[in-house]
Amino acid sequence: MVHEHISTIFDIELDDLRQSILTMGGKVELMITNSIKSLVERNTPLAERIIAMDHEVNGAEVTIDERCLELLALRQPVGRDLRFITIALKIVTDLERMGDLCANIAKRTRELNEEPLLKPYIDIPRMAHWTEIMVKEALDAFVRGDADLAIKVCKDDNLVDELNVQIQRELLTFMIEDPKTITRAIKLNYISKSLERIADHATNISEMVIFMVKGKDIRHMTM
Amino acid sequence: MVHEHISTIFDIELDDLRQSILTMGGKVELMITNSIKSLVERNTPLAERIIAMDHEVNGAEVTIDERCLELLALRQPVGRDLRFITIALKIVTDLERMGDLCANIAKRTRELNEEPLLKPYIDIPRMAHWTEIMVKEALDAFVRGDADLAIKVCKDDNLVDELNVQIQRELLTFMIEDPKTITRAIKLNYISKSLERIADHATNISEMVIFMVKGKDIRHMTM
Repeated sequence: MVHEHISTIFDIELDDLRQSILTMGGKVELMITNSIKSLVERNTPLAERIIAMDHEVNGAEVTIDERCLELLALRQPVGRDLRFITIALKIVTDLERMGDLCANIAKRTRELNEEPLLKPYIDIPRMAHWTEIMVKEALDAFVRGDADLAIKVCKDDNLVDELNVQIQRELLTFMIEDPKTITRAIKLNYISKSLERIADHATNISEMVIFMVKGKDIRHMTM
Repeated sequence: MVHEHISTIFDIELDDLRQSILTMGGKVELMITNSIKSLVERNTPLAERIIAMDHEVNGAEVTIDERCLELLALRQPVGRDLRFITIALKIVTDLERMGDLCANIAKRTRELNEEPLLKPYIDIPRMAHWTEIMVKEALDAFVRGDADLAIKVCKDDNLVDELNVQIQRELLTFMIEDPKTITRAIKLNYISKSLERIADHATNISEMVIFMVKGKDIRHMTM
């Protein structure tokens, strides 16, 4: 009975941990959407709010890390629970770096909003939309232990990669035709690459989820 | 006596873990040096070797991850040993991504070697040199538990950031003056940014080392 009781408390603790990670992820998803919204709508105050929000995400990483260490020390989990907690430790680092990338997008946006519009943004918002879904689904796959969803995320990464290549090619045309566009094009290029890196983090998370569920490491295998 | 015996075996296991991480780090350091060497010497076969080496680094991540999980499950460490192993889990992810970045540098180098030289490379090798030292010192700080060395690495990151800004500014001048240089300048810009990202990973490792040694989280504090 005592063991059963402890196991129940530990289950609640693990649920709390899952919830904290989803909350942190929710903030990052909002940062992705709003950083691109501030670009499209040329809304600098919104960009400033994204930059400020990065501190909340940084704080969440520290708190969740500490919680994972406590759980490892106090509950000494093995098997699946151990894998869950160690992967949680890695995932919060990915989320924190996604937050940094969003803050960087917002900083470039703040600069771009001071200059004339280079072109209407079509592919970048599309790319941001896919990226945000990937982040959401990667975290859902993690908390539910859903390997199929994680595999879907890894495949979706190709879409984001393709959009990034397409955007880079288009920006290159602008730069070659009119050198006055170069500084703006470089900033947009940076934003596109940052989204691609965020999608890569979501892919990394998904690969870890597949490892967690199947016990098989698909990281570094060609999908 | 039994406890002491177990503790001694565990100490050996931790030493082995430290050694594996240093070996993995050694490969990454070699990849940094040689990726830039292949750029400066226009040595495409060397670039190919770097790309192939990335698989070794990926494999090392998987092996060390599994070893950390085994040690957590079998030895159920607490306190400093627990922090050491959980940070090892995060560090190998940083090292793996540094390996990816070096492989990407080598891929851009392979392309650049097919085209006329844009300019003699001076700042990029200097940046690579600093970056490699940062990686080496971050790992030394980790295995020795040397917080002072870790703090030095965090400070050195500013040098790499400054060199990156300077390189970007110079490349921009090339692009504006002669649009024919744009594609090559973008690739060099990518290489410079990749080195800067590798240095950021070394900084991340150092911040975790300071946390490990001092139990105080300096991540996200302004240095």
